[in-house]
Amino acid sequence: MERVPILKLGDVLIVSIQIDLQDQGVLALQEDLADAVVESGARGVIIDISAVEIVDSFIGRMLATIASISRVLDAETIVVGMRPAVAITLVELGLSLGGVRTALNLEKGVALLEDRDNARAVAVPR
Amino acid sequence: MERVPILKLGDVLIVSIQIDLQDQGVLALQEDLADAVVESGARGVIIDISAVEIVDSFIGRMLATIASISRVLDAETIVVGMRPAVAITLVELGLSLGGVRTALNLEKGVALLEDRDNARAVAVPR
Repeated sequence: MERVPILKLGDVLIVSIQIDLQDQGVLALQEDLADAVVESGARGVIIDISAVEIVDSFIGRMLATIASISRVLDAETIVVGMRPAVAITLVELGLSLGGVRTALNLEKGVALLEDRDNARAVAVPR
Repeated sequence: MERVPILKLGDVLIVSIQIDLQDQGVLALQEDLADAVVESGARGVIIDISAVEIVDSFIGRMLATIASISRVLDAETIVVGMRPAVAITLVELGLSLGGVRTALNLEKGVALLEDRDNARAVAVPR
């Protein structure tokens, strides 16, 4: 079974979804990501879906689950690279991606995470 | 035809190869990357092959070609995430990946690019 590689860059894990994930693949990705967050102490998970042409409720649920798992592990999940057509389909399907933050691309996603870290640093001065 | 997404982060383009590329896919990736380097003015291209289980002469040639194209466009290519078994196979096949720099993972690849930029800045003070 092919596994989706998880790239680490500083405090951020980057996942680029390019293959059609079935149930087993989704479970493997969730496990791998949870492991990676714990091992690396990452504060953010960025999931690039620019190669994903169709987002159905299955993928929507996967993204929400990954976001929930990461949140319990104190990492924020940001979905980036959504195609316009995918956004339209999501809304038509009534899927709101609740609890999942989005950004236009990887750079803006990383900027979002940095903003949050800065906000924390201000809130809790050391 | 599926296209491999190209992520941009600062001066660096990141490509994670997860699907088996055939001739058409390789040509498309080379074109997309050349376009992306020119459009973004990127100084580095990092190709993650951690999901690649078998590297044959076809893939080896693709990596070398991408590196050559990038070089003409003044961007350095670094291949990261090579599996141990892939490294062994490469050597056994007599493929040296000439002209392609490698690094253990994305972080070390980015560090390599930054070192180079720093070295340039020292060599050509402004």
